[in-house]
Amino acid sequence: MTETTGRDNFIYIGNKPFMNYVTSVVVQFTTKGASEVLVKARGKFISRAVDVAEVACKRFLKDQIRVKDININSEEFKNNEGKDVRVSTIDVVLEKLK
Amino acid sequence: MTETTGRDNFIYIGNKPFMNYVTSVVVQFTTKGASEVLVKARGKFISRAVDVAEVACKRFLKDQIRVKDININSEEFKNNEGKDVRVSTIDVVLEKLK
Repeated sequence: MTETTGRDNFIYIGNKPFMNYVTSVVVQFTTKGASEVLVKARGKFISRAVDVAEVACKRFLKDQIRVKDININSEEFKNNEGKDVRVSTIDVVLEKLK
Repeated sequence: MTETTGRDNFIYIGNKPFMNYVTSVVVQFTTKGASEVLVKARGKFISRAVDVAEVACKRFLKDQIRVKDININSEEFKNNEGKDVRVSTIDVVLEKLK
């Protein structure tokens, strides 16, 4: 499992337009010269995180980046009614090809 | 990347009630004695595949199975209007702990 805390260049996937996230990945690797970018999501946004990673790797930065590692996990917390809730998370680590 | 074709014990995640899929995973590992089970999904069901894997690993078969490997990919095809469409896929490989 890859340790992800303390990493600077991560992108947290949410409700914004899809291409915003793809653009963020591209900018991190190109303008900002990152060697790795972490795409993170929770719950229903997990599918979207996979889409962002795939579109970045297969279309916008084809042959320039690849999926290095994928980790899934769960977070448990109490909701407003004090009930235990579990939500799944995903971390997709993208890396620049040499 | 893990080769997944020809594998017998895979579970394809779709619209059925969530616990059906978790139960299928449990039955594969227990009653059917599988050493590996592959949880597959496409598009919006990817989040659900991660949930199924997490609930199976963390609750129902805690300390008995683990995530061995996760692969993401894309499938491209033409839709009814002849337009190119891309859909993401995920394969989560679960394995029995010794």
